[in-house]
Amino acid sequence: MSGLQASALPTSARSLCARAGAPGGTAVTSASATLGHEASAAALLDRCRDRVRPALVEAVGRLHPWTGEMAAYALGWADPAGTPDPGGSEGKGVRQALALLGAEAVGADGGDAVPGAVAVELVHTFSLLHDDIMDADAVRRQRPAVWKSYGTGPAVLAGDALLAQAVASLAETPGPRTAAAVRHLCGTLTTLVSGQAEDLRFEERPWSGPGAVEPDQYRSMAEDKTGALLGCALALGAILGGAPDRTVTALDRAGRHLGLAFQAVDDILGIWGDPTATGKPVHADLRQGKKTYPVLIALAGGGRAAREAEALLASGRRIDGETAEHVAALVERAGGRTGTRDEALRQLDAARHALREAPLKHSAAEELDVLFTHLLDRTW
Amino acid sequence: MSGLQASALPTSARSLCARAGAPGGTAVTSASATLGHEASAAALLDRCRDRVRPALVEAVGRLHPWTGEMAAYALGWADPAGTPDPGGSEGKGVRQALALLGAEAVGADGGDAVPGAVAVELVHTFSLLHDDIMDADAVRRQRPAVWKSYGTGPAVLAGDALLAQAVASLAETPGPRTAAAVRHLCGTLTTLVSGQAEDLRFEERPWSGPGAVEPDQYRSMAEDKTGALLGCALALGAILGGAPDRTVTALDRAGRHLGLAFQAVDDILGIWGDPTATGKPVHADLRQGKKTYPVLIALAGGGRAAREAEALLASGRRIDGETAEHVAALVERAGGRTGTRDEALRQLDAARHALREAPLKHSAAEELDVLFTHLLDRTW
Repeated sequence: MSGLQASALPTSARSLCARAGAPGGTAVTSASATLGHEASAAALLDRCRDRVRPALVEAVGRLHPWTGEMAAYALGWADPAGTPDPGGSEGKGVRQALALLGAEAVGADGGDAVPGAVAVELVHTFSLLHDDIMDADAVRRQRPAVWKSYGTGPAVLAGDALLAQAVASLAETPGPRTAAAVRHLCGTLTTLVSGQAEDLRFEERPWSGPGAVEPDQYRSMAEDKTGALLGCALALGAILGGAPDRTVTALDRAGRHLGLAFQAVDDILGIWGDPTATGKPVHADLRQGKKTYPVLIALAGGGRAAREAEALLASGRRIDGETAEHVAALVERAGGRTGTRDEALRQLDAARHALREAPLKHSAAEELDVLFTHLLDRTW
Repeated sequence: MSGLQASALPTSARSLCARAGAPGGTAVTSASATLGHEASAAALLDRCRDRVRPALVEAVGRLHPWTGEMAAYALGWADPAGTPDPGGSEGKGVRQALALLGAEAVGADGGDAVPGAVAVELVHTFSLLHDDIMDADAVRRQRPAVWKSYGTGPAVLAGDALLAQAVASLAETPGPRTAAAVRHLCGTLTTLVSGQAEDLRFEERPWSGPGAVEPDQYRSMAEDKTGALLGCALALGAILGGAPDRTVTALDRAGRHLGLAFQAVDDILGIWGDPTATGKPVHADLRQGKKTYPVLIALAGGGRAAREAEALLASGRRIDGETAEHVAALVERAGGRTGTRDEALRQLDAARHALREAPLKHSAAEELDVLFTHLLDRTW
């Protein structure tokens, strides 16, 4: 499991919208009909990135020059020599966009959400930096991870600097809504770290028997590790935009469901994704023995294929080449792939439902829906 | 350079008071005459630790159980198996005491400062955890460092959890003073991380010539890395105790000077300290090629001994055994030891001066002075 990743794959967005948006997600369909999803989502992300960029650059500029250099590399703004990398490996900036759209959806100006957008982008970058150390992931966005380029100690330091700057830059925002925003961000930070702890602990647990990881436990971990920050981005936008608590809560919930949907898609790609598109080897998550959603629901479902997959995974033998191919086939036969796909669709639907619960400005809510769809807009 | 460390050495406190307190630090002398410095400082630290303990235990209890276990080990509450370690390796709790005394000194109840005390203790523990990874220090308080006991990845995670919980627990404190306290803490965090970055960068710089580290640059780094959190502890106590900005600033400054004084003493002990008392090999900082204050002012002073020391340090040869002994003697001959001692006394005097600038409650100011003296109360 590797959290959200930048990706620009051919899409299955239309079929996804048609299936998951059926109960009422018509906004997306109409936006899609006009502009095409990809184009409108890309324009949206660009607009938000442009709006946040000066404040983000300023926040990174306040770091010690050395940690600033590592941060610029992590953000895809520069190569390891510190040379600007304009064609680079910048993330999509999903979280900053969610923050801005969160404010606009509650009728405020997106600019009100900029300090929140900066904070969530910095927190996201911090978490990628430190998670790559913990997971020994050597590659991030097709480049060496920060710890690979600069060393583990410096990467720990750069993550710390980003985390500290994230909270500091939000806390320094003038205005009566800052305190609530900081509280929300801090709560998210503890949740995020707790989710990462739970994920790491899953590695030590058995594939079957009393201590085995249950799908619900996995879902709870993924909500903490991936969903909480997406929810926080929307919530910060709403808080800084002056929304009442109920609206903040609804947007936060929408983001959490979105995170769970994204994680489910990511887990499918981690096993069955096209290596040329994911940048990871085929069956990567199986080779690494990761306990991801498809495997867990396959095993939890029981049956002959599940038991055979379980025996192979628990054998301690290397899962590689043909064995990985075989385990992937068994997991699919035991319903792991379909089950995870259903989970993604359920969560996307729940995210849209949460949006509809809140009294949001129509145009911004439409844009949020476009963005939600775009995030799952990959071949899976 | 290893930051503040717990220590219980025979003292030279009386001579220190007599010399440094001369211009007006009479409070300490009278307190010392009544109780004896060590006894009164120990009682003070005990009282503050007892007062903060329940909230600190609660904050650590809110962590994920695994990170909580590592935090309990780092705090000296448990051994690596998670078994309570009551005789253990708990730190003195200087920062929590400064926070409580900061509140009492401005006429508030120490209890008002407890959320600040918890925050600074958690931040301190976070910084020890991550600094030990960056500095590859395998031992902390006579026990294996967290990364040695649990692994680097888990230690990174535990530090993150402590940092997040530090800010979260303060941010959740009800009341009108929380926002200012959070702002102060966040500013300190960015300063602290920046100081650590600067310290690590010093390692790459030459011993002489244009890029050499100047004593003023070292002082600035030490103020950021060590002084800022001591200042923050006092400042948070004052803020939560309702003091005006001027008083907060004075207490913050006192803590920063105290940190610089402590660092100077620590640097002397890092070269000339008794290994049985410091827990580090003799000449430890020289062996590790650390650019500490005694060496930097010796080299900056010039002269034959300085040039000889510089040549040995810059030679790239291993500084060990007789060579280390020889370099230590050269640094001493070039004035490095006396100069650092003078710096410690100057900074202690400046800390006391800052205290006298603020309109503090007499009894609490006396206790602060006792604590300041106690912190430098080591054979050096």
